[in-house]
Amino acid sequence: MPTPVILDCDPGHDDAFAIWLAAGDPAIDLRAVTTVGGNGRLYHTTYNARVVISLAGIEGVPVAPGADSPMVRLLKPAEWIHGDNALGGPELPKPTVEADARSAIELIRDTLDAAGEPVTIVATGPLTNVAMFARTCPDRLPMIREVVWMGGSTGRGNVTPYAEFNAWTDPEAVAIVLGTGVPFTMVGLNVTHQVLATQEVIARIEAVGNRTAAFGVELLNFFNSTYETDQGMPDGPLHDPVAVALVARPGLVTTVRTRVDVELHGTETSGATCVDLLGKLNRPPNANVATGVDVPAFWQLVEDAVRTLA
Amino acid sequence: MPTPVILDCDPGHDDAFAIWLAAGDPAIDLRAVTTVGGNGRLYHTTYNARVVISLAGIEGVPVAPGADSPMVRLLKPAEWIHGDNALGGPELPKPTVEADARSAIELIRDTLDAAGEPVTIVATGPLTNVAMFARTCPDRLPMIREVVWMGGSTGRGNVTPYAEFNAWTDPEAVAIVLGTGVPFTMVGLNVTHQVLATQEVIARIEAVGNRTAAFGVELLNFFNSTYETDQGMPDGPLHDPVAVALVARPGLVTTVRTRVDVELHGTETSGATCVDLLGKLNRPPNANVATGVDVPAFWQLVEDAVRTLA
Amino acid sequence: MPTPVILDCDPGHDDAFAIWLAAGDPAIDLRAVTTVGGNGRLYHTTYNARVVISLAGIEGVPVAPGADSPMVRLLKPAEWIHGDNALGGPELPKPTVEADARSAIELIRDTLDAAGEPVTIVATGPLTNVAMFARTCPDRLPMIREVVWMGGSTGRGNVTPYAEFNAWTDPEAVAIVLGTGVPFTMVGLNVTHQVLATQEVIARIEAVGNRTAAFGVELLNFFNSTYETDQGMPDGPLHDPVAVALVARPGLVTTVRTRVDVELHGTETSGATCVDLLGKLNRPPNANVATGVDVPAFWQLVEDAVRTLA
Amino acid sequence: MPTPVILDCDPGHDDAFAIWLAAGDPAIDLRAVTTVGGNGRLYHTTYNARVVISLAGIEGVPVAPGADSPMVRLLKPAEWIHGDNALGGPELPKPTVEADARSAIELIRDTLDAAGEPVTIVATGPLTNVAMFARTCPDRLPMIREVVWMGGSTGRGNVTPYAEFNAWTDPEAVAIVLGTGVPFTMVGLNVTHQVLATQEVIARIEAVGNRTAAFGVELLNFFNSTYETDQGMPDGPLHDPVAVALVARPGLVTTVRTRVDVELHGTETSGATCVDLLGKLNRPPNANVATGVDVPAFWQLVEDAVRTLA
Repeated sequence: MPTPVILDCDPGHDDAFAIWLAAGDPAIDLRAVTTVGGNGRLYHTTYNARVVISLAGIEGVPVAPGADSPMVRLLKPAEWIHGDNALGGPELPKPTVEADARSAIELIRDTLDAAGEPVTIVATGPLTNVAMFARTCPDRLPMIREVVWMGGSTGRGNVTPYAEFNAWTDPEAVAIVLGTGVPFTMVGLNVTHQVLATQEVIARIEAVGNRTAAFGVELLNFFNSTYETDQGMPDGPLHDPVAVALVARPGLVTTVRTRVDVELHGTETSGATCVDLLGKLNRPPNANVATGVDVPAFWQLVEDAVRTLA
Repeated sequence: MPTPVILDCDPGHDDAFAIWLAAGDPAIDLRAVTTVGGNGRLYHTTYNARVVISLAGIEGVPVAPGADSPMVRLLKPAEWIHGDNALGGPELPKPTVEADARSAIELIRDTLDAAGEPVTIVATGPLTNVAMFARTCPDRLPMIREVVWMGGSTGRGNVTPYAEFNAWTDPEAVAIVLGTGVPFTMVGLNVTHQVLATQEVIARIEAVGNRTAAFGVELLNFFNSTYETDQGMPDGPLHDPVAVALVARPGLVTTVRTRVDVELHGTETSGATCVDLLGKLNRPPNANVATGVDVPAFWQLVEDAVRTLA
Repeated sequence: MPTPVILDCDPGHDDAFAIWLAAGDPAIDLRAVTTVGGNGRLYHTTYNARVVISLAGIEGVPVAPGADSPMVRLLKPAEWIHGDNALGGPELPKPTVEADARSAIELIRDTLDAAGEPVTIVATGPLTNVAMFARTCPDRLPMIREVVWMGGSTGRGNVTPYAEFNAWTDPEAVAIVLGTGVPFTMVGLNVTHQVLATQEVIARIEAVGNRTAAFGVELLNFFNSTYETDQGMPDGPLHDPVAVALVARPGLVTTVRTRVDVELHGTETSGATCVDLLGKLNRPPNANVATGVDVPAFWQLVEDAVRTLA
Repeated sequence: MPTPVILDCDPGHDDAFAIWLAAGDPAIDLRAVTTVGGNGRLYHTTYNARVVISLAGIEGVPVAPGADSPMVRLLKPAEWIHGDNALGGPELPKPTVEADARSAIELIRDTLDAAGEPVTIVATGPLTNVAMFARTCPDRLPMIREVVWMGGSTGRGNVTPYAEFNAWTDPEAVAIVLGTGVPFTMVGLNVTHQVLATQEVIARIEAVGNRTAAFGVELLNFFNSTYETDQGMPDGPLHDPVAVALVARPGLVTTVRTRVDVELHGTETSGATCVDLLGKLNRPPNANVATGVDVPAFWQLVEDAVRTLA
């Protein structure tokens, strides 16, 4: 039985692949897509989700917009990586899929209520929507099987020395979600920096030969160019689909049960995800943290999923 | 024309008088009551709102429960002041008014949508509901005429040296509401500590002679006893109705236009409302802050309102 | 027997009166003056101490310069109150008293070693020198009878909403001195704002008729003009001599034994002295905090001291 | 010409090797050793410095004790790594070298004054002494050629997720030293975790065959056992001598010019050294940060130095 999944995202180049993987992989039953301000403002991330879904011929998956603003802080969209419209590179075809009339919180609630079984939330942007859901519908939290989040890091960050972008954008949301006690898995930079969109990877995707693949290749080329400029990485790391892959193929991403605390108060370290891998703090574990990924298996999964799409 | 008001509260002894004043004063058109965890847990504050409304014979005002938990932090109900059930003292009669099926956020949204004119929100507890509304319904913010909040202080606090209870409970919510740009008025301890429930005041309320007055006197006696123990004040300050009085009688509470910032990051001062009365910080004003109250006029207002009730 | 005193100061208009009171009052045996960057940079505060001592004909009191920089932070001299040279107003006569060859820390150490009895340190600037002494000569701490500090506040501040200038300038030094366990008395704005240099006070000082009085009147007139502009107080509060008066006349300043913690980490409240007057924090008392002053007795003391000088 | 060096340390197992390397390497002219509370309390670190110097037959190098307490915080000696006396493992022979009568600050000052050329300070413990020197003798700062510090990390820490022990012990001292503008080089865990005391390394040291080598082997065996327990590293990283090696053989340790800021205010990240390797913060560089080490050349240097000793 495929795992029912709600994908909460902020497309975003790597989010596009996360959507395609979630829609195209047979082990995932994608029930809903919700959007959040992050890589771009909510207007763009919602539009981009619709573009990416329409273009790939994904049907029957409602898309609903959530929060454009982090819980407490101001949004600074990652234009330096994703461009002005959060999906820089290709010309965007007009989406045929409309946004749902409901808000992200309502769509999450209705999806959980209708599922009849716990549903996994894969979040690939700031955790604002998930945190807002936790605060507005605390009675529905037991219906969430797990939150699998692409964000944070066990080591260095990518926007400040110790903070990853999604965590840095809304650290209070991370603290809230960790505090709910809902099973939580963090897939951070320490792992996602292993899945690099090399020329070989791009050639493989291109060889799939469909519309989604062609669009995806344009995304990857743009992504690699900004990663080289901003991060000194000529091959960009395709962060977000790793969180989907973890759900799709247990074992593909290895994890460790440990303690994660997010820094809310530092002047230099706000949003740092402090992962106590050595158990020095004597606090109870509250998260599974990804520590490794089977890179060839990951790319195979992505390629296979893209092949199923339009 | 009376001012349309939504009262967001956490009854609480002084909240009870705020409800009665808002319902009984002819200058206020009380459209809705929403509740929040603060003086007590949400279960108690919602129940108490229903008790206080039922007992006073207030009709046609929906009551909806909101957040039991602050945005980011843990709730520590003020049992040391308000007792275990947040309304210590009198025996509580079973309420006849039921809670609305909607959540506080939905009730605020619907009340604004139905009003056809801007509505004032008077908040007498932690600002969690107002902040959550701002984050979930940002498009509705222009429909709020003003948020008038009992909370904060220009001087000392009452739960730590510099933090007042409502601000200390959810400082992030204060920051969010201040950040919305909705007109904001703060009625803090510096003013509410002037309206003391002296024996003379209690005698006046008692002399009103109705059921609400009798219940109110029991509340005041309990409130005074805990204030004496906890704060060294034998006559407790009736904070919350001052925010209602400010709306009911312009001029009764004097205010100054100034800058308020709330401390989110201190180890000793979290929740301190920093009011730049001297303009030393060179930041634009963002709030009206109460600086004085006409004490005799205030008590007359309260007495008159109680007299209109059951 | 007069109390042996080291006066650590940053003259500064009110520091000048503190020096004169300490030198002129028969109950104080002024053993040394040390200077610190605060109201002005160290160059100015040291020079000003020499000016003020020379002009008043004070002899045999060594003057040694200490720290120009707070422990951790950058110095921002209070030019808005004290002018560019920290002693704005009168023309400064060339001092006849030279600075000691020793540093402030060495002079404090030698003075303690030579005293044969515990010595009181009255500090009227940032606590940097006292903190540095504590860290470099921890074995000498038992020779300090008490540190009496003009600084902090139980209520509002004067440089930010909750921070007083001396505490705000070097909060880490306050934390260090509180942490030593040396008996500590804080004389804050809540008390010093009661001793205002009114026209009547100025007339009394002027009537003393000596050189010190004439110079002092020029200081007070300048001080009042900047206080009116910066703080909206037409009569400036003569903070620093209150700390000396507390030592000179036990009972003239009333104090309470309580808990003081200084905020080191807030973004809005750095340097706030959090005085737990209600005992809400359940921490052991660590300070005496001034709560009142006999204003007429204070001015009599100042007038009498000035009369003894040149 | 050998480089004149003052070694400020807190022996500590790896500090012992740092002393031996500084004394035994022909490229270093070791002028003074100063001690600080860190791995152990000052009593122990001073005693251990004397033991290690005496045992190795090092002569003419004065040893002076400095601060037992960090600038602002409380010391928590690293007993979990270094044992109760900071030099766990071998029986300590009674030292023949006495401590100097001067304090560390005085010895640093005198050494600089006597040198006639700039002197390098190699610091292998918390930076307390260097920071205290900066604050008490700011006029002597131009006489320091460079501060080379073993501490911090560009990645994970060893006492909390992001803080290395020396930085965590006295983060304010790091901020002070960085703020002086004295040339500063940081040798952090990212590099020192590459020089592991493997069995092969221990065998090489043992083969030197002198008294120092035998004592050193006992130190390494103890060190490896605590590192295995505390950090899951069966071969302990010999941090401190890497800072000495950097001075002794330019090029042995590679560095990059970049920006370092230390976190003073976080609740989870206090003491994290935030190294902006990607230049994302747009702040001017203020440090050289070690990024690599020639491991075989390092061990050769250590072995050669030990061979020159008793």
